[in-house]
Amino acid sequence: MIDHILEGIRTYYLEWLPFNKVLGISIDSLDYETGEAVVSFPMKPDLIGNSAAGILHGGVTAAVIDLTGGLSALISCVKFNEDATPEKIQEKLISSATIDMRVDYLRPGRGEAFECKSRVIRAGSRIVVSKIDLFNEKAVRIATGTATYMIG
Amino acid sequence: MIDHILEGIRTYYLEWLPFNKVLGISIDSLDYETGEAVVSFPMKPDLIGNSAAGILHGGVTAAVIDLTGGLSALISCVKFNEDATPEKIQEKLISSATIDMRVDYLRPGRGEAFECKSRVIRAGSRIVVSKIDLFNEKAVRIATGTATYMIG
Amino acid sequence: MIDHILEGIRTYYLEWLPFNKVLGISIDSLDYETGEAVVSFPMKPDLIGNSAAGILHGGVTAAVIDLTGGLSALISCVKFNEDATPEKIQEKLISSATIDMRVDYLRPGRGEAFECKSRVIRAGSRIVVSKIDLFNEKAVRIATGTATYMIG
Amino acid sequence: MIDHILEGIRTYYLEWLPFNKVLGISIDSLDYETGEAVVSFPMKPDLIGNSAAGILHGGVTAAVIDLTGGLSALISCVKFNEDATPEKIQEKLISSATIDMRVDYLRPGRGEAFECKSRVIRAGSRIVVSKIDLFNEKAVRIATGTATYMIG
Repeated sequence: MIDHILEGIRTYYLEWLPFNKVLGISIDSLDYETGEAVVSFPMKPDLIGNSAAGILHGGVTAAVIDLTGGLSALISCVKFNEDATPEKIQEKLISSATIDMRVDYLRPGRGEAFECKSRVIRAGSRIVVSKIDLFNEKAVRIATGTATYMIG
Repeated sequence: MIDHILEGIRTYYLEWLPFNKVLGISIDSLDYETGEAVVSFPMKPDLIGNSAAGILHGGVTAAVIDLTGGLSALISCVKFNEDATPEKIQEKLISSATIDMRVDYLRPGRGEAFECKSRVIRAGSRIVVSKIDLFNEKAVRIATGTATYMIG
Repeated sequence: MIDHILEGIRTYYLEWLPFNKVLGISIDSLDYETGEAVVSFPMKPDLIGNSAAGILHGGVTAAVIDLTGGLSALISCVKFNEDATPEKIQEKLISSATIDMRVDYLRPGRGEAFECKSRVIRAGSRIVVSKIDLFNEKAVRIATGTATYMIG
Repeated sequence: MIDHILEGIRTYYLEWLPFNKVLGISIDSLDYETGEAVVSFPMKPDLIGNSAAGILHGGVTAAVIDLTGGLSALISCVKFNEDATPEKIQEKLISSATIDMRVDYLRPGRGEAFECKSRVIRAGSRIVVSKIDLFNEKAVRIATGTATYMIG
């Protein structure tokens, strides 16, 4: 059943959230045990924030950090409600939300493809804190972030 | 000449940064004396991050907070280099960048149109810190943020 | 009864928390309606973090911002549990805690006396977010912060 | 000469900053190559912020995170000015300062002794960003933080 729910999270993110389509993200992995999530996306002209340098817009970086950390929070949400009905779990997932986020821009967002990895550093029944890193295809870390999520 | 440079910042933001076009922003005002900047944008399907609730994607909120605060930083950059040549000023503007940002999501991003206001809370020759608020058309504050920028 | 509880918060902060005594704080006001809190403290040698400049240690600034914002969170906690028994309210107060905090150091911490003001910018039954400012006796803002608290 | 300067930083921190004495910190290591810094301190009554639970005051946690990350920033400052005169280096060290900091309180600050470790995640000639973790004597991570410093 867990696989079914994780599949549901994946479908929801990729099919139902228009802005995620604008960003062009894929979900590479969701680890139910650890809460780790990996998201990737290719560079494309729409994501550029500095036309001279051809680098990612800082807003794209922030958006991807938020949504990847959010996947870790959703996994935690499922784990804390493992015994609930699917309807109850779905309700809790939908009412989960980001409370706050810090993003540190470490290097210019240069690259052809990007990978964003999140892990859970605080897993509570009400609050989840994720630590998130964004890398380019050469494994250069472009940005890092910490985000606090409320579990529905 | 200042008007010319502010017009240049406006054109650069609106014409040359593809992701700003994706977001659909307008620049409503740039105040050279105070560093205040006001950006607005209408809701549209592409910006949605929760299909059931029809609210702004948290990444859109973060992106607009970053770019509006960045306008205040660019105004500060011009002020600190008022006596430089236009070429030198342009060079400094282009090499300015966000160092870090905090976003607090205060209420669901519901609305038909949004306005984002930034003011400078620390104006240095090398570092600018902006405080930014995002409101909907009913003047409900949806999010607030603080961002630190490096001046080129 | 509310006055009694606010008095209890005040006594707890000032009498029972050793580190608050080290800092030498007073609680100037707690506003039950708005959640605003005002804390003050005089400069003293123990609080110095730069012997040459004679300015506040950044850790003192952070500590006072956290504890003042926490007072706003505790007031919110009482308001959301107004109808509970005093024992239940006390239990919730004690299990409230800071989740995360951002501090922006705007100017050197110079002064003879300091005042720290907090107001609530998000008041939920589980999460409170406070915005906090630290001023010196000349009303110069030395630092600002935002902190997220969990309500027990 | 580097050893001499690092020794100077150590002496300055431990002998000349009164609030560091209040906290009771030791500097366990400063790594010139990586910028890593390790600070430790024993629990003592003055540092308590919750008399019932006997845990660290959140302000102590924030203070130690700030000062440990600051050590990493000072090492970076020395590295970027390796060829300057000792007087010039000292001047740059003294005018370095924290710009902003985020602290995440992950678990209650329980313990008999604490260790705080910082590493540099962005090393620039003007800006240093440190990532800092606070552990108790059982290697339980109590808090984590990210701080941005300006190099004099």
